[in-house]
Amino acid sequence: MPVTPAAQVTISEVGPRDGLQSVTAIMPTAAKLRWIEALHAAGLREIEVASFVPAKLLPQMADAAEVVRHARALAGLTVMALVLNLQGAQAALDAGAHKLTIPVSASPAHSMANVRRTPQDMVEQVRAIVALRDASAQPTGVEVGISTAFGCTLQGAVPEDDVIRLAVALAQAGVDEIGLSDTTGMANPVQVRRLFTRLRAELGDRAGAAHMHNTRGLGLANCLAAYDVGVRTFDSSLGGLGGCPYAPGASGNVVTEDLVFMFEAMGVGTGVILEKLIAARAPLMAGLPGEPLYGMTPEAGLPQGFAQDAAHA
Amino acid sequence: MPVTPAAQVTISEVGPRDGLQSVTAIMPTAAKLRWIEALHAAGLREIEVASFVPAKLLPQMADAAEVVRHARALAGLTVMALVLNLQGAQAALDAGAHKLTIPVSASPAHSMANVRRTPQDMVEQVRAIVALRDASAQPTGVEVGISTAFGCTLQGAVPEDDVIRLAVALAQAGVDEIGLSDTTGMANPVQVRRLFTRLRAELGDRAGAAHMHNTRGLGLANCLAAYDVGVRTFDSSLGGLGGCPYAPGASGNVVTEDLVFMFEAMGVGTGVILEKLIAARAPLMAGLPGEPLYGMTPEAGLPQGFAQDAAHA
Repeated sequence: MPVTPAAQVTISEVGPRDGLQSVTAIMPTAAKLRWIEALHAAGLREIEVASFVPAKLLPQMADAAEVVRHARALAGLTVMALVLNLQGAQAALDAGAHKLTIPVSASPAHSMANVRRTPQDMVEQVRAIVALRDASAQPTGVEVGISTAFGCTLQGAVPEDDVIRLAVALAQAGVDEIGLSDTTGMANPVQVRRLFTRLRAELGDRAGAAHMHNTRGLGLANCLAAYDVGVRTFDSSLGGLGGCPYAPGASGNVVTEDLVFMFEAMGVGTGVILEKLIAARAPLMAGLPGEPLYGMTPEAGLPQGFAQDAAHA
Repeated sequence: MPVTPAAQVTISEVGPRDGLQSVTAIMPTAAKLRWIEALHAAGLREIEVASFVPAKLLPQMADAAEVVRHARALAGLTVMALVLNLQGAQAALDAGAHKLTIPVSASPAHSMANVRRTPQDMVEQVRAIVALRDASAQPTGVEVGISTAFGCTLQGAVPEDDVIRLAVALAQAGVDEIGLSDTTGMANPVQVRRLFTRLRAELGDRAGAAHMHNTRGLGLANCLAAYDVGVRTFDSSLGGLGGCPYAPGASGNVVTEDLVFMFEAMGVGTGVILEKLIAARAPLMAGLPGEPLYGMTPEAGLPQGFAQDAAHA
C-alpha cells in the first residue's frame, strides 16, 4: 500500500448527492452507506452525502438524515449536505452535517427553473441560513456553489460581473466559502483562470471550490486551469455520475478517478489511494445496477510502475 | 457561416494514417478521399493522410501513393505521410508528400517492437532520409515525432534526458521539426510543461508538435499544458480514432472535435469550423461501418450562441 502524503488539494466527492439526484433509480440506504464507506476508505475526506429537500421532489434523498448520521461516524470525514432553504438547513443541522452547501445560480432563468427563486431571493435565503447556523451551537460551515457561473443553457452567456457581484453579496451575507460551478459544461480554461482569479481577488480565502463538468470533454483541462490560479478544492463524482437535471443538455461531472490520477501523476497529493478509489466503483454499481459509469483511468488501469508516493518524490 | 480568423494554432489531423492503421477494417480508397475532403472542407490545413510501409504489413495503407496524390489537389493543404525507412521515404517523395513524418521512439523496447531498430539506428535512418530529401528537387519537410516521450508500457519510465538527447541528435541529423508523443497515455501536465520547455530551450523553433493521447482522460489537459509553454501544433484524430497497435494498452488519440472546441472557446483560432468538422464524421463512419467513434462535443453539441468569431472578439 503506497503511503500518500498530506493532501495538497481536496477532492470533494459529490456522487452520493449530485450523482444520485440525477438518476431516476433510488439507491437503497444500505448500499449508499457501503459506497460512502468505500469512498472514505479510499482516502476521500470531504463527501457531499445527501440533499435535504422534500422527499416528494427527490425520493432518492428521503434517507438524507440517516445517511448524514452514519457518515459522521467515519474518521476525519467532512460530511456535506445540500440545502435550499431554512427547513432543509434545520434538518441538516439536526442531523449533524459538518458543512451545508447551497447552490445559488448566477442565471435568473436557471435559478427560477432550479429553485423557483431569483438569485437575489436566494441571497436572502442564504443570509437566513447563516443566521440559523449562527444561532445553533454547531460549528457547521456554510458554503455556496455559484451555478451556471460560466454560462447557462437557458439564458446563454452569463456576464462575469454578475457572477462576481453575486459572490460578493454572498460573502457579505456571511458565507464561509464561495465556489464556481460549470453547471452546463460551457467553461473554457481561459475563462476559468480569469473568473477564479477575479473571485480570489474579491474574496481572498473565501474563494472556494471548482465544480467542473465534462460535458464537452474539458473537465480536467478546466480543473488544471483552476489549479493554476490557486484553486485547491475540486468537486467530482465517482464514475462521473450526475449532472444537473434542471439544466437541459447538462451532463457529466468530472470523473473522480481521472481527476485524482491527474493530480497524483502531477505530484500533487490528493490523499486518495487510486486502487481503492477504483475499487469503490463496485459498491456504486451494486447499488445502481445498469447505471452507466464513466472514467478513462479505471478502463485503462494505472501505468506500469505508477506509485503514488513515487509521484511525490 | 462564422468567419474564422487566421489560425493561432495548427491542428494536425492524423486520423487517416494513425487512425486507420489502428483498426483492422480496410477503408476503401474512395471513402478515404471523401473523408479527407471533408476534413479539408472543415478548415484543417495539415493532414497525415497515409503511411508508406509494405502493404503486407499494413494493407490499410496499400493506396498511400494514390491518397497523397489526391490530397495534393486540396487548396492550401499540407499533405503529410509517415515513413519508416528510405524505401518509404522515396515512395512518399515520388507521390509528392509535402512533409514526411518519422516516428522515433525514446524507448528501446518500444522501438524494437515498433520498427525492429534501436533509437540510435533510427537516427541514422532519419539522417539518410534527410539526405534523400536534400538530393531530391523537392522542398519536402522532414519531421520526427518522438514516441513514448512521456513513458512506455514496455519499458516503464523513460528518462527525460534520453528524450532530450534523442531530440538533439535528430536536430543534428537535419530534421526540420521534432515533436513529442505520449504514445501510451502516461503524460501529465507538469511533465508536459517541463519536457516541452526543455525541448524548446534545446531546439528553439525546431521544437514541434504535441501528440497527446486520452488514454486516462488527460488528453486535453496535456494539450493545454503544452500550449501554455508555447507549443502551437497539436496532433489529434477525428472521433479519437487510433492509438498505437504496438504499445499494449495504448489507446485514444485526442479527439479533434473536442480539441478544436477547447481552443476556439478559449479564443485561440484553429481555422477550423466546428459544424463542418462534426459533419466530417459522416464520411468517416460511412467508410468504417461499426467502428466506435469518441468525442464529447459532437454528443453534447455546441453551446447555445457559441459563435467561433465571437469567441475571438
